[in-house]
Amino acid sequence: MPHSALDLHQDAARLTAQLVDIPSESGNEKVLADAVEAALGELPHLRVDRYGNNVVARTFLGRPERVILAGHLDTVPIADNVPSRLDDDGLLWGCGTTDMKSGVAVQLRIAATVPEPNRDLTFVFYDNEEVAAHLNGLGHVAEAHPDWLAGDFAVLLEGSEGEVEGGCQGTLRVNLRTTGVRAHSARGWLGANAIHAAAPILARLEAYEPRRPVIDGLEYHEGLNAVRVEGGVAGNVIPDVCTVTVNYRYAPDRSEEEAVAHVREVFAGCGVDELAVDDSSPGALPGLDRPAARAFVEAVGGRPRPKFGWTDVSRFSALGVPAVNYGPGDPNLAHKRDERVETRLILRCEERLRHWLSS
Amino acid sequence: MPHSALDLHQDAARLTAQLVDIPSESGNEKVLADAVEAALGELPHLRVDRYGNNVVARTFLGRPERVILAGHLDTVPIADNVPSRLDDDGLLWGCGTTDMKSGVAVQLRIAATVPEPNRDLTFVFYDNEEVAAHLNGLGHVAEAHPDWLAGDFAVLLEGSEGEVEGGCQGTLRVNLRTTGVRAHSARGWLGANAIHAAAPILARLEAYEPRRPVIDGLEYHEGLNAVRVEGGVAGNVIPDVCTVTVNYRYAPDRSEEEAVAHVREVFAGCGVDELAVDDSSPGALPGLDRPAARAFVEAVGGRPRPKFGWTDVSRFSALGVPAVNYGPGDPNLAHKRDERVETRLILRCEERLRHWLSS
Repeated sequence: MPHSALDLHQDAARLTAQLVDIPSESGNEKVLADAVEAALGELPHLRVDRYGNNVVARTFLGRPERVILAGHLDTVPIADNVPSRLDDDGLLWGCGTTDMKSGVAVQLRIAATVPEPNRDLTFVFYDNEEVAAHLNGLGHVAEAHPDWLAGDFAVLLEGSEGEVEGGCQGTLRVNLRTTGVRAHSARGWLGANAIHAAAPILARLEAYEPRRPVIDGLEYHEGLNAVRVEGGVAGNVIPDVCTVTVNYRYAPDRSEEEAVAHVREVFAGCGVDELAVDDSSPGALPGLDRPAARAFVEAVGGRPRPKFGWTDVSRFSALGVPAVNYGPGDPNLAHKRDERVETRLILRCEERLRHWLSS
Repeated sequence: MPHSALDLHQDAARLTAQLVDIPSESGNEKVLADAVEAALGELPHLRVDRYGNNVVARTFLGRPERVILAGHLDTVPIADNVPSRLDDDGLLWGCGTTDMKSGVAVQLRIAATVPEPNRDLTFVFYDNEEVAAHLNGLGHVAEAHPDWLAGDFAVLLEGSEGEVEGGCQGTLRVNLRTTGVRAHSARGWLGANAIHAAAPILARLEAYEPRRPVIDGLEYHEGLNAVRVEGGVAGNVIPDVCTVTVNYRYAPDRSEEEAVAHVREVFAGCGVDELAVDDSSPGALPGLDRPAARAFVEAVGGRPRPKFGWTDVSRFSALGVPAVNYGPGDPNLAHKRDERVETRLILRCEERLRHWLSS
């Protein structure tokens, strides 16, 4: 299949176009994973391992530090936006251009063009990032082969518009339930209204002042929000259950357990009958105080920003590897029909990483 | 069809059983309406009119007062509980026993056995009470033949456990909407949370003190309750809309317009972006100060109670006819699979009405 033989001699922008033109919606990454494995297999300085449709390539040069460059191979469903198209303004259009085949192209170009890096390198290409967390290939590799992911610092090439975004905030979703007693609304006093009982919860949310802690020089910004409220039986019935679903986004100086404890504390005395954790993913510390990270920030330039959204850097953090997001894509364009990336940013990202790892 | 020829010579309890055994689920009242029309047509002191499956029979004796005895012919869907069954404790079981063929039996017995009443009488039998309001036969008669429903006082023989229940409370349902701005919950400060914006609405509901006005000696009991709350887009999105549906049950000294004005006033300053009336039915004054009503209460005995739930007495009230509920059924057993009625109460109801209208 000539279309899937990757040419790592072209620049990262052209390589991005080739990657976009090999469809790899979540669950269908095999063709692309084969192509990546084959292309990396030709590079004598790398040892290539594979687990499912996840490909890991490493140097073993005995350097004092090891850094990881990671990216996912899958995309959301194609929406009539493949094959890719390069316009006259240097914008490359198509599914996955920004999220995140431009980042994958940069990884592959570094693998091919920096045979003697100043730090040992681990390249990770994984599947199923765009779907349910339990399918995530990075998670599967972390469970089955944690040694493949050992390192001092990781760069996840998810789109960050070419800026360094440090760590990520954790996210916790809990259901707060109030209960009452059903009754006909014509004789409401015979019941107890569970929706009214939720009043102190909403009042607490409305008055909540989120923390903005500074960690490794980055100012995070927490948030505690109701994302759903549900209650009601019928138009003439006093409701006996009301559920407020709350999403707590918290800075990475808090653990998952501390996040749950904080939410419990916030809603103490609000008449919550049941507090149930619905979903929880820890944050990730930026680790910008590590030597590899300092050198990275210096080499790529710009002023690091905190990452507010949850990303897979958290999985590295859980393995004890501080991680940042740094990629050419624009996260605001991800998953859109008119997804696109500035080829200028792809080339700049490629160049700066090469500079960091070569000098 | 012998089974549908009604025998008005048996007592109201036995007649109830016969009525239950003629199925008449809403929309299928024709066989029963035919039987009622035929049976009343044999009584020379009555003029019988029919409109659809609604039957109206009247005396024209030139009495100074006219009272109406009304009841609906339809039942909710049968749930394996027809034919009727009389047990050793004098309980008659079956669909419609309490709601309200026992009341209809009492109407028919009075029609057959009081040929020279002390007040002119109007008997109303109507269809489609158990379904949507616009199908209600009493409403259709009121529109097409309001003169058939002229009178000084009406007794609706809906189940009230043999006690007089005066008038009824009105019911108003409104949707209170708050709005905000969507955003990813990881950057919640870029949005505005519509659920949080509903906090003052719930606080107002929780603090609300309902009125308990006394009208014609009956203490009503209002209520203002959230019966539904709905908001939320996804687990990671700041919601931009939240709707609290509120049900206001109000005493019959307030009009529909006054009820809406009251709700607007209660929620003024609560950040409601839209207040939309979803459903409205006015209350009905008990009219217990009218001579016919006074005599009625004296004749049937007991202490009149206010009616909290909405019933068709409100339709009489809208025509200027004060009305009460008075029937042998137990409203708590209505619509249940194990619906039943105490035959003792049917006979007592029959006897007391006959006493009121004969003495």
